[in-house]
Amino acid sequence: MATKRELTAIKKQKSAETLSKLVTLAESVVAQAEQGENPGVDIPIRALSNVSFNEKKSIIEMGDRTQTRSLFNVNMAKRFAQTFLVASACKELLDAGKTTSIRDLYYMTKHTIGKTSENTFDSQTESDPIIEDLEVAISTLREELHLFASNRGSMVGELTLVDSGDTIDARRQGSGGWAVPSIVEEEVVQFRKCDAKFILLVEKDAVWRRLNEDKFWRKHKCILIQSQGQPARGVRRLIRRMTEELKLPLYVLVDNDPWGLYIYSVVKQGSINLAYESVRMAVPKARFLGLSSYDRERYDLPDGSTIMLNRKDEERAKQMLKYAWFKERRWQRELKKMLDSKVKMEIEALSRKGISFISEEYLPRKIKEKDWLV
Amino acid sequence: MATKRELTAIKKQKSAETLSKLVTLAESVVAQAEQGENPGVDIPIRALSNVSFNEKKSIIEMGDRTQTRSLFNVNMAKRFAQTFLVASACKELLDAGKTTSIRDLYYMTKHTIGKTSENTFDSQTESDPIIEDLEVAISTLREELHLFASNRGSMVGELTLVDSGDTIDARRQGSGGWAVPSIVEEEVVQFRKCDAKFILLVEKDAVWRRLNEDKFWRKHKCILIQSQGQPARGVRRLIRRMTEELKLPLYVLVDNDPWGLYIYSVVKQGSINLAYESVRMAVPKARFLGLSSYDRERYDLPDGSTIMLNRKDEERAKQMLKYAWFKERRWQRELKKMLDSKVKMEIEALSRKGISFISEEYLPRKIKEKDWLV
Repeated sequence: MATKRELTAIKKQKSAETLSKLVTLAESVVAQAEQGENPGVDIPIRALSNVSFNEKKSIIEMGDRTQTRSLFNVNMAKRFAQTFLVASACKELLDAGKTTSIRDLYYMTKHTIGKTSENTFDSQTESDPIIEDLEVAISTLREELHLFASNRGSMVGELTLVDSGDTIDARRQGSGGWAVPSIVEEEVVQFRKCDAKFILLVEKDAVWRRLNEDKFWRKHKCILIQSQGQPARGVRRLIRRMTEELKLPLYVLVDNDPWGLYIYSVVKQGSINLAYESVRMAVPKARFLGLSSYDRERYDLPDGSTIMLNRKDEERAKQMLKYAWFKERRWQRELKKMLDSKVKMEIEALSRKGISFISEEYLPRKIKEKDWLV
Repeated sequence: MATKRELTAIKKQKSAETLSKLVTLAESVVAQAEQGENPGVDIPIRALSNVSFNEKKSIIEMGDRTQTRSLFNVNMAKRFAQTFLVASACKELLDAGKTTSIRDLYYMTKHTIGKTSENTFDSQTESDPIIEDLEVAISTLREELHLFASNRGSMVGELTLVDSGDTIDARRQGSGGWAVPSIVEEEVVQFRKCDAKFILLVEKDAVWRRLNEDKFWRKHKCILIQSQGQPARGVRRLIRRMTEELKLPLYVLVDNDPWGLYIYSVVKQGSINLAYESVRMAVPKARFLGLSSYDRERYDLPDGSTIMLNRKDEERAKQMLKYAWFKERRWQRELKKMLDSKVKMEIEALSRKGISFISEEYLPRKIKEKDWLV
């Protein structure tokens, strides 16, 4: 267990490392200029063409292909300058020991250039990709650049943790729970006493509240976390750290539709757009607990519990059948069952069998019978 | 301070009251049937036509006009039956002492009728208005029917409270904060030691985090709460209870655009659609702290901090100029200034003046100079 002094030391060291990466990047450009070269930065390509599925590690990885962004190039000059504008603002944040949102960063870096009518950034859709460029260019996460995205999600359960120096006993967080922050790196969040045997991630807030009210986490000794849809970075990073440092298995409970299954897949192996983060965010051993297209028969759910798949659902499911990370036989079977049955199902549909069917029957039986997919 | 036993008693009594209202409603219909009358329920009309602004109380109120929903009427029979189906599900929840989401309720009450192909509800858009009908018909809030909507929002600051038996010290909630639940009635949330002098409600999560990181609430002795846009019912009810029971003034900080001002107005006097809730949700003394259209000059904000109003913004602002609750001279001036200047501004734009300008200069000066609107 790190002491307060050690934590301050960790924080300082991590800041120093990130700062040094930023400074190195800037110095390399200065050196190029001094040698009369066209200053440029190599930026790894963030596109499907430069992404591959690492079957051994079971995560989506970014490849080695890069593109040079140089100053003396009409198409690149603006983005070259923007990259250093963002880098400079991040240095300012690191120097001040403060964090901010990516929206805030946009305002911090937005101004009109000299006496022109040209703006450094016209909208946040311009500055956000530059942040991602910077992340990959110097192999850092935005959280290390002291930037955060939106945060969502809350947590309760058999764990004590420390958040920014405050001890949070997740067993005593009432009906609301602890709001998961967006930066949960070691210097902010540390784990203490853990009595949990597993983590249950639930896509839906309302279902999480049902489980919290039934004190599911106490009876089944677990950590209960909800993500309100696709988990925000804070939730992803937190469950990754908990599975790793607390050695807990992770179960995922999502709607039975292509979007729910995709949430699971992002948690498990990362996303295509942000493949460079998988190495720090993905949980390859995550277990898909449900809802499965087979649950309807297995749990004798009434007919009214389903909704017809629409055209978009079908297209998405077919697309997913082709993804390398869904090639495994049981996943192909699962996706095909959904397409064949032509229906989807929300977690809430389990309430057709009673208010607490989910906490008293469905989940305990799923876990006991090891009825999950990986 | 209520003891645990007293709380259980309050909870029981409130449940009993709501149950009795539901039973009375059902019995009145049975009595009508037994007397050979067409069974019907009087439901207050929820529309602009039955809404008025009570200037004295400064809240939007529902009028007395009702509509009778009767069984033997082709246009009403289905909704009549749906009303009692929802009422019956709520009775089940109250009997079991459990709460659930309005989505869940939809699934609980959805089924195919007998041997027909007719469903009780085809979608949640059918069941949600029935819940509202039931709320107004028996003068109760959905929370008292044990139903919750989505929850959003988190809180930190100079207050200790109890949530479902767990003591939450809002001074020690780390960077994440306590996630505000959707049901915050007295039997769930009780207030304990309060050292706060005011409440600050911030529309934006990212701004809240900036203020929490700067420990604004400690320095200025306040409760800091964020709503992620239009406050959810839990946040509205909580701030209402805090202003009333803890006798704290409420300051509201929103974007300088018609939508931000509207958020303030809903917090202050309620909304048209849910006028019947104002009496339990509205905070007529709420103070609008900013962002004001005059802030640009008063705080010398750089040009790049604004965004042009679009057509929708302008239409909305013009509409708001006509609302009775914006008729006050200073509000007319505020709205007209926005329309004249043709620009809007986000809270984050204050970062153009530095990362902590908002916590170190803007807010303290606003409060000190009493530069707010009511």
